[in-house]
Amino acid sequence: MTAYDNFFSSIAKSIKASEIREILAIIRERKDVISLAGGIPDPKTFPREELAEIAKRMIIEYGDQALQYSETKGILEVREMLSHFLLESRGISIDAENIIVTTGSQQALDLVARTLLDPGDIVITENPSYLASLGAFKIRGAQLVGIKIDKHGMRTDLLEETVKKLVSEGKKIKFIYTIPVSQNPAGTTMPPDRKKHLIEIANKYNLLVVEDDPYSYFVYDETVDVSPIKAYDSEDRVLYMSTVSKILAPGLRIGWIASPEKLTRKLELVKQYMDLHSPTLNQFIVAEAIRSGLVTRHAHKLSPFYKRKRDAMIKAIKEYFPENVWYTEPVGGFFVFVYVNKEGFDTGRLLRKAIDKYKVAYVPGQSFHTDGSGANSMRLSFSYPPPEIIEEGIRRIAELIKNEN
Amino acid sequence: MTAYDNFFSSIAKSIKASEIREILAIIRERKDVISLAGGIPDPKTFPREELAEIAKRMIIEYGDQALQYSETKGILEVREMLSHFLLESRGISIDAENIIVTTGSQQALDLVARTLLDPGDIVITENPSYLASLGAFKIRGAQLVGIKIDKHGMRTDLLEETVKKLVSEGKKIKFIYTIPVSQNPAGTTMPPDRKKHLIEIANKYNLLVVEDDPYSYFVYDETVDVSPIKAYDSEDRVLYMSTVSKILAPGLRIGWIASPEKLTRKLELVKQYMDLHSPTLNQFIVAEAIRSGLVTRHAHKLSPFYKRKRDAMIKAIKEYFPENVWYTEPVGGFFVFVYVNKEGFDTGRLLRKAIDKYKVAYVPGQSFHTDGSGANSMRLSFSYPPPEIIEEGIRRIAELIKNEN
Repeated sequence: MTAYDNFFSSIAKSIKASEIREILAIIRERKDVISLAGGIPDPKTFPREELAEIAKRMIIEYGDQALQYSETKGILEVREMLSHFLLESRGISIDAENIIVTTGSQQALDLVARTLLDPGDIVITENPSYLASLGAFKIRGAQLVGIKIDKHGMRTDLLEETVKKLVSEGKKIKFIYTIPVSQNPAGTTMPPDRKKHLIEIANKYNLLVVEDDPYSYFVYDETVDVSPIKAYDSEDRVLYMSTVSKILAPGLRIGWIASPEKLTRKLELVKQYMDLHSPTLNQFIVAEAIRSGLVTRHAHKLSPFYKRKRDAMIKAIKEYFPENVWYTEPVGGFFVFVYVNKEGFDTGRLLRKAIDKYKVAYVPGQSFHTDGSGANSMRLSFSYPPPEIIEEGIRRIAELIKNEN
Repeated sequence: MTAYDNFFSSIAKSIKASEIREILAIIRERKDVISLAGGIPDPKTFPREELAEIAKRMIIEYGDQALQYSETKGILEVREMLSHFLLESRGISIDAENIIVTTGSQQALDLVARTLLDPGDIVITENPSYLASLGAFKIRGAQLVGIKIDKHGMRTDLLEETVKKLVSEGKKIKFIYTIPVSQNPAGTTMPPDRKKHLIEIANKYNLLVVEDDPYSYFVYDETVDVSPIKAYDSEDRVLYMSTVSKILAPGLRIGWIASPEKLTRKLELVKQYMDLHSPTLNQFIVAEAIRSGLVTRHAHKLSPFYKRKRDAMIKAIKEYFPENVWYTEPVGGFFVFVYVNKEGFDTGRLLRKAIDKYKVAYVPGQSFHTDGSGANSMRLSFSYPPPEIIEEGIRRIAELIKNEN
């Protein structure tokens, strides 16, 4: 037989199937297990009837364009709608010319990685950070440097120290990657002074910032500041990326980058080789969903809906978890992050037992970390199960924490 | 100001905007110019009403899944439909497990390139070949080796010589990339003996084959053999890729790879970093369009529709072109390829003049070539304009050929 391994690229060879992903894939079929692993939106929130009508209407009325090839950067209609929407909802002033529509946020990450990163380049991230972002940077050969978080997100004092040190060593830092609001996996939100500090550091040391913001469009505490870093970006250094995955429907796979003017053209040229353009029909649907106000109305409904779930999780944690657990209290998003301060407690090693004996699943936290730390951490998601199931799930996790190590 | 160039990756630096693309972008607004450049489907063919109904129904009936995140490889429904469809329509026996849904064929090309190619690896293609494929391989650093074509496509006698030589020099050939039926840009179709010869060479020298087949589902001469190379693939070496872009609607961005079993998993893992998965809604639409018979019915309608256009172009070429023009006569697809045998005739240099003076546009052929040849060639597309406009366009091209050099 052919030795197929000889055909694989170095990228393909370096990518291994995740054992944890395999374990978590199995539990979908196990009705007796409560999963706090997932992190996907609750499909009860999808505005089906409205989207069905919009989809039909877009094809009937604009079929010649909606079913046709279209511009790599995205159709003008959706870029103009996004330009208005970003100004009104997030205070971001960006011309339609500098918006690039992507096939979900994941493509935005991959596109940024391919356009900006060469092997050995440094990317600074929160530690922990979003797994799929870290992966997209790593397959470009980037070296990841994680900055410790506290309950208010990235510690920008440590960020400045780190940048200063790396720069003094002559290292090439390409950008700071951050999810400032309702971070995945940590559930933390940076206060305005940290956001401002972060952009000051970028300005001072001539760095780009990649701001990933899927969650800030709905939060559970209206008094919290969730302004984007991009709104403080006076030197046009921030690539702001977001998506309709959390505020409308992930199955549409429509994300976008609000790009510094000088980067737009290169991003567009690189995207052309990736998929020519994102699905035209889906762009028409999103443009109409924004224009008609559906997205804004829908985001408003999501706040109370997910707040009940967040509250259920935090209440149960306070009730059931022992003292030796550090956890975050999210103002938005889908996640609570947990460190268990108990000698030898290893969430990766315990996952199988958690599922089989305690009938509960979570995502072990180590793979979200850039430095191999976090074996004692886990990500808990409240997005999918109903509140009473969340509570029972947390009770089971508490048992695991108390009984095992 | 920041020197943004320092932020770009080597990939981004290597990609230049195409001057020709810029020129061709302008002519869209010029009503006095006949464009034979494009190559996009005629939107009159799009089955709007049917697709509008299907889109609506999929969201209403399957919204929980159709609007949700889904499996990287593609939803099972569409992979099973594709498995049946490929067997019935193309004689390809492939299990749903080894089908990977992609965001259009372009992503399939990029995915294959990233999974199989390292810088310096050799890819063998037809010379000329599809521009965006060559680009996807080149940004992975591949070295392209083009095999001369004649009116029956790739000359597999030359292919064997070339492979033998490269192998004897210790060069690493990863795969042969071919569009055997209705090639873009050449419009050629390989007869069965060449297809068989090609797979024999792959077997003998232990190579993979990437078969790109967007066009064979409808042809203009029913007696011509358009069987895929994949149907002759006894050693599981052929990655067969296709798309609904030509047989349903490109705006859906749904393509697929029928993959050798041993490659499927790696392709899936690499795709995960590219866009997590292709749009779920669009996959449901395509699954239903296949299941309901719409795709098959529609492909049957396309044959007579585009045949009229092909006939108009070939008739006009025979009427107007001078003797010194070599051209192909396509049995399917959208393209006729032309070499003008006239000292110093340079289609790239003449494009501006063709547009301004002769009011006609084409795609200069050099960039389709792997070796810098083809300055005297051009690609002419008959897919978009109506037959009478095609005829007038060819008359103008004939004037250009006669008058300029």
